[in-house]
Amino acid sequence: MINTPKPPYYAVIFTNEKTSDTKGYAEMADQMAMLAAEQPGYLGLESISEGDKTITISYWTDQESILNWKNISEHVIAQKTGRERWYNYYTTRVAKVERDYSFDKEDM
Amino acid sequence: MINTPKPPYYAVIFTNEKTSDTKGYAEMADQMAMLAAEQPGYLGLESISEGDKTITISYWTDQESILNWKNISEHVIAQKTGRERWYNYYTTRVAKVERDYSFDKEDM
Repeated sequence: MINTPKPPYYAVIFTNEKTSDTKGYAEMADQMAMLAAEQPGYLGLESISEGDKTITISYWTDQESILNWKNISEHVIAQKTGRERWYNYYTTRVAKVERDYSFDKEDM
Repeated sequence: MINTPKPPYYAVIFTNEKTSDTKGYAEMADQMAMLAAEQPGYLGLESISEGDKTITISYWTDQESILNWKNISEHVIAQKTGRERWYNYYTTRVAKVERDYSFDKEDM
């Protein structure tokens, strides 16, 4: 569970399907997750894979932090390699979280 | 890939971890996905599971449609059963998609 602050904050929803060319993908994904975590405005990241499909959601304080992260040079290279080799398709959605609510069995 | 319209539209991000009590869960999840698809304002749904964790994202035209879906009686019962039996924890985030971009290898 990612502990995000009180809304509003931002979510970047990255959904994708991968090709059969997986060489280097896992290393890049780990590296990008670590690099994202170092950026200003980063709040957390969660990623789930099933077969060739993945949903990765990263959370950010504001739009500016997301644009900054999008344009970090290592990230730009990873995006380019992704289009050339790793992804059949992907969609990135930048969304403003307006409200949220959580349940935790341990609190009951 | 879910074909959503031009932003703005809404995403409901539902992230959860399940308990070991999985009885009835898969049937309920299928039933809720079908029921959601019948609601006004529904744009699509994608769900990925890995181990006991799931991310489900549903897309909607507007907030009103999301509230309507939240309060449909079968859905209210499913939420209650979820808290009592199926989920260790979950977070629901209602987010306004402000921009999006896609890549599809077939378009290259």
